[in-house]
Amino acid sequence: MGGFDALRRLTAESLGAALLLAVVIGSGIMGERLAGGNTAIALLANALATGAALVVLIGVFGPISGAHFNPVVTLITALRREIPWRLALAYPVAQIVGAIVGVWVAHAMFGAPILQISTHSRAGGALALSEVVATFGLIVTILGTARFRPETTAKAVGLYIVAAYWFTASTAFANPAVTIARCFSNTFAGIAPSSAPAFIAAQLIGALLAASVLGWLLKAEKTS
Amino acid sequence: MGGFDALRRLTAESLGAALLLAVVIGSGIMGERLAGGNTAIALLANALATGAALVVLIGVFGPISGAHFNPVVTLITALRREIPWRLALAYPVAQIVGAIVGVWVAHAMFGAPILQISTHSRAGGALALSEVVATFGLIVTILGTARFRPETTAKAVGLYIVAAYWFTASTAFANPAVTIARCFSNTFAGIAPSSAPAFIAAQLIGALLAASVLGWLLKAEKTS
Amino acid sequence: MGGFDALRRLTAESLGAALLLAVVIGSGIMGERLAGGNTAIALLANALATGAALVVLIGVFGPISGAHFNPVVTLITALRREIPWRLALAYPVAQIVGAIVGVWVAHAMFGAPILQISTHSRAGGALALSEVVATFGLIVTILGTARFRPETTAKAVGLYIVAAYWFTASTAFANPAVTIARCFSNTFAGIAPSSAPAFIAAQLIGALLAASVLGWLLKAEKTS
Amino acid sequence: MGGFDALRRLTAESLGAALLLAVVIGSGIMGERLAGGNTAIALLANALATGAALVVLIGVFGPISGAHFNPVVTLITALRREIPWRLALAYPVAQIVGAIVGVWVAHAMFGAPILQISTHSRAGGALALSEVVATFGLIVTILGTARFRPETTAKAVGLYIVAAYWFTASTAFANPAVTIARCFSNTFAGIAPSSAPAFIAAQLIGALLAASVLGWLLKAEKTS
Repeated sequence: MGGFDALRRLTAESLGAALLLAVVIGSGIMGERLAGGNTAIALLANALATGAALVVLIGVFGPISGAHFNPVVTLITALRREIPWRLALAYPVAQIVGAIVGVWVAHAMFGAPILQISTHSRAGGALALSEVVATFGLIVTILGTARFRPETTAKAVGLYIVAAYWFTASTAFANPAVTIARCFSNTFAGIAPSSAPAFIAAQLIGALLAASVLGWLLKAEKTS
Repeated sequence: MGGFDALRRLTAESLGAALLLAVVIGSGIMGERLAGGNTAIALLANALATGAALVVLIGVFGPISGAHFNPVVTLITALRREIPWRLALAYPVAQIVGAIVGVWVAHAMFGAPILQISTHSRAGGALALSEVVATFGLIVTILGTARFRPETTAKAVGLYIVAAYWFTASTAFANPAVTIARCFSNTFAGIAPSSAPAFIAAQLIGALLAASVLGWLLKAEKTS
Repeated sequence: MGGFDALRRLTAESLGAALLLAVVIGSGIMGERLAGGNTAIALLANALATGAALVVLIGVFGPISGAHFNPVVTLITALRREIPWRLALAYPVAQIVGAIVGVWVAHAMFGAPILQISTHSRAGGALALSEVVATFGLIVTILGTARFRPETTAKAVGLYIVAAYWFTASTAFANPAVTIARCFSNTFAGIAPSSAPAFIAAQLIGALLAASVLGWLLKAEKTS
Repeated sequence: MGGFDALRRLTAESLGAALLLAVVIGSGIMGERLAGGNTAIALLANALATGAALVVLIGVFGPISGAHFNPVVTLITALRREIPWRLALAYPVAQIVGAIVGVWVAHAMFGAPILQISTHSRAGGALALSEVVATFGLIVTILGTARFRPETTAKAVGLYIVAAYWFTASTAFANPAVTIARCFSNTFAGIAPSSAPAFIAAQLIGALLAASVLGWLLKAEKTS
């Protein structure tokens, strides 16, 4: 990634986050409209669209910016000294701005009001635990594949998110920028702003926990 | 691709476009027939079939003709001087002829009248914006993967289209040849001829926008 | 494949065909039972299961026998002089025997009568045309990927079949051994014996057509 | 794998099994809740989530411990002298403990009682045969890909399980640790403890059968 300057890297984070959120929100609206009351089909389409888009976006923007699109991924990367702190502080701004713009683009594509605030409450300890687990698994996926087969990270993240939409009760936000942006959409994939802080705290806990566990686990013994 | 003459390259574009449209229209008809009123399942099957077919068709015909199957992809490729203009002018003719034949083959396979004109109006600014975004994303996918990992382009395009069927309100035509051919089918995947010009204009805008943005973004700085 | 003797190669063809048919018939029964009248979901599961299994089976048995599991694939391979005729005549016997055993295993797994004959008539020109197109596309997929990127053939065939279940009116049998074996199952995926000959004839036509077209198309010009 | 000590390898087996079971049980609960009575959609989501997670988990933990997560895989590996018996005896303990913890995590994420015992009886010869076939296919997948293209094993196992959820009447447990853990969940994916012994016996039979057949089949002849 050394060849790209900070502006291009921040643009890649913003543009990638915008496209990611356009997919998350857009496919949620489409699912809601087409599936009638059948939420299972809506969630299946939402999960497949998001997973497919992630594989593509990480493949395209990874070589430029690392394709984090996610402040906790940036945090872990900075803690591991893989990007300088100066960039690590700017990345989340780019991610959040891009993500919100992506939400608005989705609204515009479906002819919905651009400015919305979600009223979809997602509160309680079970959902917070879900976000801890979801983010733990995401960071395990990223650090584990990056160590042994980095060319598979994009696919692994996409597959992981397809699973995580279904095995966590929160449908796996696992990303503070995504959480903030989804506050701005009163649709299938939205989250009420009052529920966001607990989600973000849980994501931080899950990410740090995963980084600790994997940090130890991936350390190969010299002897034996 | 240097080893293949113009006739073989044009045949590849035609045959690929024909198979692509047979899949788009055929799976739309099948979905419509089996899913009853459940449009979400029909769109899910339509999206998965189209994405799967694209991976295969780009894999097979890519080494011969580049596997554009899409006049705006050909335009961008020519603007980047990756194919000669002489071929770039012939490709769209081959693509459109092939695509229309593919529609007819789909009708014949399902025992429907061969010649049809769609009455499915897809008008309005929201759908036009959808086509701008859908085509923007398609060109980002193609140029981004081609730059860093060209062997992944076929899969990335297939995955992108699965997502794009769901996250855009227009179900992502993103291709003037496909748009024209789908005018000739009064089925699930059809589009009324009166709606086609705005779609095609939007696709051109999205493609040129993506080529500009990626042209800048992918230019690595020498220093830094 | 030179390292494996004829017995192992024929066993691989039989075992692979048995597992393939167990998947086709078994997932059809499961879909029928669970989906109630919702045939679209049953076909979606049937298609995904079959496609996934094909990728695995071709990956496992390909290095041993070529993983044809299909008499028309064997025929095309023999015509291209890629396997000796002596083996090419024995392969279909192994494929058909294996396929029928696979059907019986599926019946046993679901507690259904082992011996069945399908009463599911699949007659008419539209279905015959569907089989021509389905088999044409299958052979295009195999020959095209084998020429340029043989390591992708397994995945391409699996993806192609997912698409072909949906875009052809016949749900793409595309295989005489499969067609014969499915006569022995009066379930979702069965076919009445009276409908089989036209299917098999159509498959032969589609395969030979594809081999001719691709034979010409893949011949790179020396000059130019 | 030589670089990792026994503690890290056992941790990888436990953590991987925990995440796998969290996915199996969690996605089953989500499917049950969202799909209403439509079991086909629930099983489809359950299968896709499990298959996707397996690809990721084998990719991440494979280089550390081999990513068995399954006592019969460990048994076959030990019989082939690919891991020492000392480890082979400890692996299943780690797998079972991890798997049970994963079930509990899933319950907690969905706000369900942590401690449950399944009352879902899965008895009878048809289901036992299903487990023989399911495990036979799993071991064929693992040994076959490991021999010729080991870098594809993770994907092949994930795809195989997607198919196996659908083509076997038992939905393919194919794993004694998973079978024991699923006794502890009275949800969609649970199994009554009284049904477990027959499942496990059948899994052993299927695994040993596959190892015998593949052991012979994969032995390339020197001459010929």
